[in-house]
Amino acid sequence: MMPEAPSGPDHMTPDEFRAAGHATVDWIADFLAGVADRPIMPDVAPGDVRASLPPSPPSVGESFDALLDDVDSLIAPAVTQWQHPGFFGYFPANSSPPSVLGELVSAGLGVQGMLWSTSPACTELETHVLDWLAEACGLPDRFRSDGPGGGVIQDSASSASLCAVLAARDRSGGSEALPDLRVYTSGQAHSSIEKDVLVAGFGRHQLRVVPVDGDYAMDADALARMVEADLADGLVPCLVVATVGTTSSGAVDPVARIAEVASAVGAWVHVDSAWAGSATVCPEHSDLLDGLDRVDSYAFNPHKWLLTNFDCSAFYVADAAPLAASLSIVPDYLRNAASDSGEVVDYRDWQVPLGRRFRALKLWFVMRSYGTDGLRAHIRAHVAAAATLADRVRANPRLEMAAPLSLGLVCLRHVDGDEASERLLADVNSTGEAFLTHTKLDDRFVLRVAVGGTWTTATHVDRLADLFDDLA
Amino acid sequence: MMPEAPSGPDHMTPDEFRAAGHATVDWIADFLAGVADRPIMPDVAPGDVRASLPPSPPSVGESFDALLDDVDSLIAPAVTQWQHPGFFGYFPANSSPPSVLGELVSAGLGVQGMLWSTSPACTELETHVLDWLAEACGLPDRFRSDGPGGGVIQDSASSASLCAVLAARDRSGGSEALPDLRVYTSGQAHSSIEKDVLVAGFGRHQLRVVPVDGDYAMDADALARMVEADLADGLVPCLVVATVGTTSSGAVDPVARIAEVASAVGAWVHVDSAWAGSATVCPEHSDLLDGLDRVDSYAFNPHKWLLTNFDCSAFYVADAAPLAASLSIVPDYLRNAASDSGEVVDYRDWQVPLGRRFRALKLWFVMRSYGTDGLRAHIRAHVAAAATLADRVRANPRLEMAAPLSLGLVCLRHVDGDEASERLLADVNSTGEAFLTHTKLDDRFVLRVAVGGTWTTATHVDRLADLFDDLA
Repeated sequence: MMPEAPSGPDHMTPDEFRAAGHATVDWIADFLAGVADRPIMPDVAPGDVRASLPPSPPSVGESFDALLDDVDSLIAPAVTQWQHPGFFGYFPANSSPPSVLGELVSAGLGVQGMLWSTSPACTELETHVLDWLAEACGLPDRFRSDGPGGGVIQDSASSASLCAVLAARDRSGGSEALPDLRVYTSGQAHSSIEKDVLVAGFGRHQLRVVPVDGDYAMDADALARMVEADLADGLVPCLVVATVGTTSSGAVDPVARIAEVASAVGAWVHVDSAWAGSATVCPEHSDLLDGLDRVDSYAFNPHKWLLTNFDCSAFYVADAAPLAASLSIVPDYLRNAASDSGEVVDYRDWQVPLGRRFRALKLWFVMRSYGTDGLRAHIRAHVAAAATLADRVRANPRLEMAAPLSLGLVCLRHVDGDEASERLLADVNSTGEAFLTHTKLDDRFVLRVAVGGTWTTATHVDRLADLFDDLA
Repeated sequence: MMPEAPSGPDHMTPDEFRAAGHATVDWIADFLAGVADRPIMPDVAPGDVRASLPPSPPSVGESFDALLDDVDSLIAPAVTQWQHPGFFGYFPANSSPPSVLGELVSAGLGVQGMLWSTSPACTELETHVLDWLAEACGLPDRFRSDGPGGGVIQDSASSASLCAVLAARDRSGGSEALPDLRVYTSGQAHSSIEKDVLVAGFGRHQLRVVPVDGDYAMDADALARMVEADLADGLVPCLVVATVGTTSSGAVDPVARIAEVASAVGAWVHVDSAWAGSATVCPEHSDLLDGLDRVDSYAFNPHKWLLTNFDCSAFYVADAAPLAASLSIVPDYLRNAASDSGEVVDYRDWQVPLGRRFRALKLWFVMRSYGTDGLRAHIRAHVAAAATLADRVRANPRLEMAAPLSLGLVCLRHVDGDEASERLLADVNSTGEAFLTHTKLDDRFVLRVAVGGTWTTATHVDRLADLFDDLA
């Protein structure tokens, strides 16, 4: 039988929350101070973590101390240490003390920003900080919020490009025209582009894979020929996705040329600069912005290389109308005076999910804590360290660069071939001091060194070069 | 000119982080202790927040104190207070002290769980805690991870249902068959279902809107007739989305009957129980699970009513293979030994985006801090308070129930009609003590009272009933 007047659960008191919160902050401080001493890849086999956990949830609540103890003894040793200064795998997942605290404030406020009216500051701070970011990076004015477009935070570049795919698809006729639509991207584009295209209902054959040049950048002439051939076949080129800083080698597609080809046929151009975009806070990397003044949308991830915790992908559109045309559905229960007035942005209409967290806080914390000077120093230290590493690779007779150095990304291989390269990767990773991942370029095995971790300094990169010297 | 050996930015020292973190925790403790005294809807006009912020980012970093001061003076007064105990709008966005700290740990660890190998504990804790949740809620065994299916955390129910749409679409032939595919849901389904269907490339006409009965639940006989008619026309019913606890009135579709109709024609059945699902932690609400043993996927949001911060939508599938068939793309740079072994789950293949946060931590913190007893007490207090409110509505001659009471959701209207109902809503909201939103049922204006906020007790609900008495 149910109790007569159920009183709800016992919550932590404010004092208990303070104590538990301070303990958690202290634990994180210790964790970050000691992360460099942990092995980067945890020594766990599939199932190990689960085997350490009780099979059923407790019926009676446990103390917070017990939780934090388990974080320390069961969880922290079993995560891959993305914040280790020797983590050079994939692309970095940046974090920073102010960003961590921005996430904390967001969780503490506990608001949901689907509409302007469901939390005005959540929406307006996001618009504002993305204008700040546009200014810091020197993005074209078309991406600022004082025109028909503006910026929004997505969870990931995959989701940002999905929005671009949807807007482009629907601008070109939507589901009725779908079978005739074609999307173009290079064979070096991120796998999420293919995934997004399939999510949006295209068949695999509707994604045209444009060849790349010797430096792995899209061949714009080949694009032009493919577009022309498709037009001749009565097909409709609806979208070209260019990549600035490919995942495999950091190659930069010729955006200006691509935009020229695309705009001539009315196709949307989306630029995926997920990793490289952060570097544009430095004026010396403004070449990465070439042609952006002619594209429809652009995304890069401050959570990769701009000191902001995942998730924070900055997605900019020159015109938000096609986005909202694809993504806005307004049932009665979401109608409100502010939305009806047309004076506000409802970011629900700029993304696929309805609900949204207050993610602008962490980016605001980061930009204010570091200032643009600090952000530039962050990028410059890594770009310089990568250049030094590339020099040492070139100086090592057993190694060779597998692609041109790109910002903080060094791609190399062993001169003895794939087997030696694979062995070198395994040997480096097995030290626990450094962690690399691989890719394939021209079907050859390539080691990728992505220099960009928050705590990664020249010293850590030098140590990696030493490991190459010892192990190659 | 670039500096010779750039040294990177100045980061907070561990001691500075401790101090800033403690201050942030203290600020949140104060904020939560005082949230009940704030007006729920902030007194801000469009543009007010932005007008209080500098137009450009700072070049030199600022102190953390300045940030926290601005959170206090500019941000907190300009958010809608979802954590106010008088917030009865939409559905609640639950939060709780342990959940907030779970988010903090997740941010502190800074891992990215796209693959098992990119953070084993991130994946395994998620699998494990979703099994715990399945057990706590009495979900059918088919949704546990020891079979071909299991659970995964999505950011929102919109994203969960999108995954179901994609899996269903592709299981029924994918893009080639797309024009002939049909999806069915009731006119009371959440707007995200329509959005998901459009995202997936369907035309609007391919979504069949099934009529509802007098209590706003899907008419399964009508569904059967529509499916039959479409089959007769050579079309392919690929998915039925049933709702357990509709947004407008908390109606519960007859899932068992729906599953019977759908399974006879090989259509996927997804059950969207975004809000109501949390109530199934109480055995007395196990009727909400009727028929779930025959459906393909199921989602509910602990971030709505189970003390867990947004974002945390629990998405369960009976068989993960169709999901992965739709969502798995494996480029070389994401290949790794663990994935190749087939012994691990890579949750990247269970969602649309690639990257993922360590969201299981907060749910783990919640389930252990409250225990299943605490979770039940949480739900029971709200269900009881809503029942009392419904009694007071029925006792008020100027009010009437607009739909049957459903768990914590009370739908009512003024007997004098829409204008009086709209005025009552505005009057209640203008007190700042309580906040309601509206919907339409049978084209009539309805006030929704969603009792479910973390800090909402019987006292707050009684106060709302008093306001109705005073203002109706």
